[in-house]
Amino acid sequence: MPQVRRLRIAVSGLGRMGARHANHFLHRTPRASLVAAFSPDPKEIEWAREYLEPWGVKLYTDYDEMLRHENLEAVCVATATTVHAEQTIKAIEAGKHVLCEKPLSTKLDVSEKVLAIARAHPHLKVMCGFSRRFDSSYLSAHASTTSGAIGRPTILRSQTCDKHDPSGFFVSYAQYSGGIFVDCNIHDIDLALWFFAPPASPSRFPRVKSVVAVGVTALEPGLKEHGDVDNGVGVVEFHGGQIAYFYSSRMNAPGQHDMTEIIGTKGKLVVNANPATGLLESHGPNGISREIPQTYYDRFEMAFVEEARQFADAVLDGTEVPVGMEGSVEAVRIGVALQESLRSGRKIWFDEGGRRVEDGEIRARL
Amino acid sequence: MPQVRRLRIAVSGLGRMGARHANHFLHRTPRASLVAAFSPDPKEIEWAREYLEPWGVKLYTDYDEMLRHENLEAVCVATATTVHAEQTIKAIEAGKHVLCEKPLSTKLDVSEKVLAIARAHPHLKVMCGFSRRFDSSYLSAHASTTSGAIGRPTILRSQTCDKHDPSGFFVSYAQYSGGIFVDCNIHDIDLALWFFAPPASPSRFPRVKSVVAVGVTALEPGLKEHGDVDNGVGVVEFHGGQIAYFYSSRMNAPGQHDMTEIIGTKGKLVVNANPATGLLESHGPNGISREIPQTYYDRFEMAFVEEARQFADAVLDGTEVPVGMEGSVEAVRIGVALQESLRSGRKIWFDEGGRRVEDGEIRARL
Amino acid sequence: MPQVRRLRIAVSGLGRMGARHANHFLHRTPRASLVAAFSPDPKEIEWAREYLEPWGVKLYTDYDEMLRHENLEAVCVATATTVHAEQTIKAIEAGKHVLCEKPLSTKLDVSEKVLAIARAHPHLKVMCGFSRRFDSSYLSAHASTTSGAIGRPTILRSQTCDKHDPSGFFVSYAQYSGGIFVDCNIHDIDLALWFFAPPASPSRFPRVKSVVAVGVTALEPGLKEHGDVDNGVGVVEFHGGQIAYFYSSRMNAPGQHDMTEIIGTKGKLVVNANPATGLLESHGPNGISREIPQTYYDRFEMAFVEEARQFADAVLDGTEVPVGMEGSVEAVRIGVALQESLRSGRKIWFDEGGRRVEDGEIRARL
Amino acid sequence: MPQVRRLRIAVSGLGRMGARHANHFLHRTPRASLVAAFSPDPKEIEWAREYLEPWGVKLYTDYDEMLRHENLEAVCVATATTVHAEQTIKAIEAGKHVLCEKPLSTKLDVSEKVLAIARAHPHLKVMCGFSRRFDSSYLSAHASTTSGAIGRPTILRSQTCDKHDPSGFFVSYAQYSGGIFVDCNIHDIDLALWFFAPPASPSRFPRVKSVVAVGVTALEPGLKEHGDVDNGVGVVEFHGGQIAYFYSSRMNAPGQHDMTEIIGTKGKLVVNANPATGLLESHGPNGISREIPQTYYDRFEMAFVEEARQFADAVLDGTEVPVGMEGSVEAVRIGVALQESLRSGRKIWFDEGGRRVEDGEIRARL
Repeated sequence: MPQVRRLRIAVSGLGRMGARHANHFLHRTPRASLVAAFSPDPKEIEWAREYLEPWGVKLYTDYDEMLRHENLEAVCVATATTVHAEQTIKAIEAGKHVLCEKPLSTKLDVSEKVLAIARAHPHLKVMCGFSRRFDSSYLSAHASTTSGAIGRPTILRSQTCDKHDPSGFFVSYAQYSGGIFVDCNIHDIDLALWFFAPPASPSRFPRVKSVVAVGVTALEPGLKEHGDVDNGVGVVEFHGGQIAYFYSSRMNAPGQHDMTEIIGTKGKLVVNANPATGLLESHGPNGISREIPQTYYDRFEMAFVEEARQFADAVLDGTEVPVGMEGSVEAVRIGVALQESLRSGRKIWFDEGGRRVEDGEIRARL
Repeated sequence: MPQVRRLRIAVSGLGRMGARHANHFLHRTPRASLVAAFSPDPKEIEWAREYLEPWGVKLYTDYDEMLRHENLEAVCVATATTVHAEQTIKAIEAGKHVLCEKPLSTKLDVSEKVLAIARAHPHLKVMCGFSRRFDSSYLSAHASTTSGAIGRPTILRSQTCDKHDPSGFFVSYAQYSGGIFVDCNIHDIDLALWFFAPPASPSRFPRVKSVVAVGVTALEPGLKEHGDVDNGVGVVEFHGGQIAYFYSSRMNAPGQHDMTEIIGTKGKLVVNANPATGLLESHGPNGISREIPQTYYDRFEMAFVEEARQFADAVLDGTEVPVGMEGSVEAVRIGVALQESLRSGRKIWFDEGGRRVEDGEIRARL
Repeated sequence: MPQVRRLRIAVSGLGRMGARHANHFLHRTPRASLVAAFSPDPKEIEWAREYLEPWGVKLYTDYDEMLRHENLEAVCVATATTVHAEQTIKAIEAGKHVLCEKPLSTKLDVSEKVLAIARAHPHLKVMCGFSRRFDSSYLSAHASTTSGAIGRPTILRSQTCDKHDPSGFFVSYAQYSGGIFVDCNIHDIDLALWFFAPPASPSRFPRVKSVVAVGVTALEPGLKEHGDVDNGVGVVEFHGGQIAYFYSSRMNAPGQHDMTEIIGTKGKLVVNANPATGLLESHGPNGISREIPQTYYDRFEMAFVEEARQFADAVLDGTEVPVGMEGSVEAVRIGVALQESLRSGRKIWFDEGGRRVEDGEIRARL
Repeated sequence: MPQVRRLRIAVSGLGRMGARHANHFLHRTPRASLVAAFSPDPKEIEWAREYLEPWGVKLYTDYDEMLRHENLEAVCVATATTVHAEQTIKAIEAGKHVLCEKPLSTKLDVSEKVLAIARAHPHLKVMCGFSRRFDSSYLSAHASTTSGAIGRPTILRSQTCDKHDPSGFFVSYAQYSGGIFVDCNIHDIDLALWFFAPPASPSRFPRVKSVVAVGVTALEPGLKEHGDVDNGVGVVEFHGGQIAYFYSSRMNAPGQHDMTEIIGTKGKLVVNANPATGLLESHGPNGISREIPQTYYDRFEMAFVEEARQFADAVLDGTEVPVGMEGSVEAVRIGVALQESLRSGRKIWFDEGGRRVEDGEIRARL
């Protein structure tokens, strides 16, 4: 019999990402054991009866009941964004470690509440799943940056571009998603916080100074009624003298293309300038071509697996989780402000404490 | 004896770019004949005695005198930016066709004056040399866009990144250059006007709606006193519902990296995502590496040659010049506004007629 | 308790590849359960006490004893090449399914004996682990080829290039490896058999017609005494009118670079023309660079995991194993002939039945 | 009036390559002046009346008469391969410098005769136009090799792949071309001689030791009657312990793809692993694609221009021509031997003096 201690974890939500998280903890995280799963959706439960239950996973249709599963230690919250915060708070209060899908919430005050509750339970590991931080290319880039290879990181450009979904999904989704900057660029914002943090104290992310955003609805005019767009450009200044600029799109023709440039005073690191599904190129009468990943998961599958592994390690070994909650709340603050700037057309300013200030006020102090 | 008619042209200014233009018209533009050259600088004249005079080119140290060179038909103005406008106006008034290096001027009113004078001499060809329009990759991208291959062009991202020059050159240059958005991104702005123009009437470029810019001085703090930066990010909205966003830098480590993405509703065209000097890659103990062009000219040499060829053709054949003066002035308007936004921190708005309006005013009409 | 049936497998040999296979079956093959492991090497057993035993894996220092492990169903043979055949035969005779690392043997007659014994036990799955067949890029290339996308596959170029190991390892290894064509290019040979097989009957690989090889010892003169080289070039003609040509090297500076071109009458597929560790590129003063995988495993890790998964599936579901034994023996035939040609300087001919013929003999029949 | 001395040159042959050479000397070689041109073909003369005559070029339909053009100094021989040698000899005997298109001849003895006559006129510059030696990427690779960057060059892989021409042109052309190894791979052979020559004495190219070749007619069975193929693979050993291996094809789907790897003991240089027409990539629903050059000239246009320039410089400045005649004859020797090996199926051996020896004879001496 195995003598290895494994983290007893449950997954909440068995939709697209939830099912994947369940599989990762079940089959691809040696130090974790998926013991339970929750979904309110009969179709998801049906899927789980086929793919999870035979492996000894107990299924629940009541979240609170699942939290009472015997000896449960941790929960991975992968439900709809709208209940991320509520389920995370309940799990913390039930004494469980939590890995929560990004974003914590589409609202800043709700995110701050999750943070406050997490802080009140310092013995529990609570982490927001910013998957790109677990991608090997981003990890290499970060290690290189920290080593000083590019000098002082000064400019970060990052984009999140989804393949166009002609079904109209993005319009219906827009009412819950928080908007393109909160839903897509939240990853890019998180990368800026990660790469611009001082190497010596990686948890001290830089403070936002201004944000401004514009956007258009090129293919999905229906997005307008949700105050959203299908192509957005945002620029964020930080008080430390750094700039991040972002692009997000719902109409990238060949598939998913998320890329990032970290530009320092001595060099630049680029992640995914040349997207590709694998190592295959086709030479045919029309030239040379290659395919690219179709979905976010196609691109970041291994990062999600690594995220599960590192979360399990942090809990079992009592080490710090690799993504701090303060930064995850800051990412919401910036994403929400970008979305507001998109709607109002205005540039939005913050003082060094993160408080909104008027344009004139801040420039008086410059 | 050749019976071919060749355009008799003179080059004004024999500095870095002027010497190149002189060589192009002398040796690489079959339908042109370089008959004269002007420079006020003894060192440039010394160079010309060695490289131009033996080929029969008459040298002048007085611009006005050069304009009186017998049978001179055209002038290529390649002096310092500060005298572009003045020399262009003089040449027009002397009845010469003019190819003027970009930008017409770092000031909008001066640029508009050049335009007015050019309009008053409709029989003369006057063109501002936006070299990228003559680069084969940009030409292919434009042909593809015009053919509808990417649907409606909606977002354009473009950057101009120079290799860092540790001599401090960029600081002294900043007092004349008009600033990074006028000096560097003017090319990117011109590309936006070119790619966003309706295919049916390519001279009808889109009208700017708003501009906003930010920047930092990462390596050259001395730039601040000229209101300039060494890294700038700018975003431009157009009244037709398109967005262009730009990046410029004076600290690109490996060399010159200018690139552009034209993003349409059905696809995207990318020019120079993977810069390289040629087709050589080195596989060594540290991995695989390649070099990139060191200067703007290294990258665009063939475009300058093509520009000379097309200008000569337009004059000799009486066809329209490929870059319209109205757009060249519009590029200055946008560049100057970006530079102002950089300095003020404010977003700047324009109505559809190109007039500055207050923030509140335009949003009242949205 | 899980109700899923999982293949009870043991791994023989816990050296570099054996340890990896053990981990794959233990942690990354959901339908398999690693129940036992064998090694004669105390250091390997020590490793296994730390990494395998705690997960319930029983360790053996006697191979025959391991074969008697209760309810054992399958063995993965990953010992030194010299005992591949012997252990495979013993396992088959003990009624176990076998996944054997490539090559079956460095000798043709021994390989043929394994084949004969496997054929005598048709209810057992016996497969030689040609890992590249499980790599997603090769699988895509094969699916594309089978679909007719490149017309009739006619030429195949394939290379296996290892990073130089300055320790002299390759020289001592040469006495067991069978030589560079048997050790390295065996993969490339297998790819030729796979890609040149008729789509309608994938197990009917093409018959070798001639082989010729040359080589040099550029860095490791000590290889000569083993009749081996550190750089080899081989060319194989098949009776169906196809040609494969191979390159192998022990001195690739940046790391592992294995690549393949499949050239058909209508197009070409290329796997790994541009090796890279991940999606990161560095832009620095010396240009743009990237790292590449350092070892064969770095490149093919996921293929090995997939190989384990497909082997388990084939056994549990009673389906055919994806790599046929006849082809694996044919690969040895060709590899051994290339090695002989390297040593003799002669071109070697085969008739359509795979029998060696003299040069004159075959050409008389052409 | 220009005081610059320019080389008075004539072009013989105004077919595809001839017309290009004429244009290069006329418009793109500042130190040369195209004074005459010859063609026996009325259609070519018609073209010349429009494009050459107006620029003062005298046209001839008699080669001998052209050689008597007043003050003519040099001839560029660009007629059909079958008359290269004859015209080159005549020009030399008329006291003209000669730039002859490759190959000198498809026959070794004829090539040797040209060499003998050139040697008898040491004051004349005679050069065979191996265009790749003038390509900037190959020049960079050679400079890097010479500098020792990759250690000792040991293996060279090089390919010449033409786009398939469905008109059947290649079949009719085969009767004159000398076969695919003489027509296409002659360039690759020349590169091997260039890169394998000792840096200290670049004219001392390595001596061939053995050649072996195979091939197939995949698309053009008609080639067989000319003893030719549409896909060929050849391997050449040199007496210095180096190996070159070649591939040529007449069926490359997307266009022209000529590439070369120079593999040394410390690193590798690769020219054109990733062919592309320019810097444009298209992102569309089927992935990311790019076009590649369609013809040899599309790929090497600038190399031909540079070749003209360096030839003119060598004549005017009295310096050595950059491509030695001995090597050009050696390339024919190797190409012809590869073609013979293709036909006979035999490996062909040479002693260090370049004499053919029997297989047994050479191996007795190994």
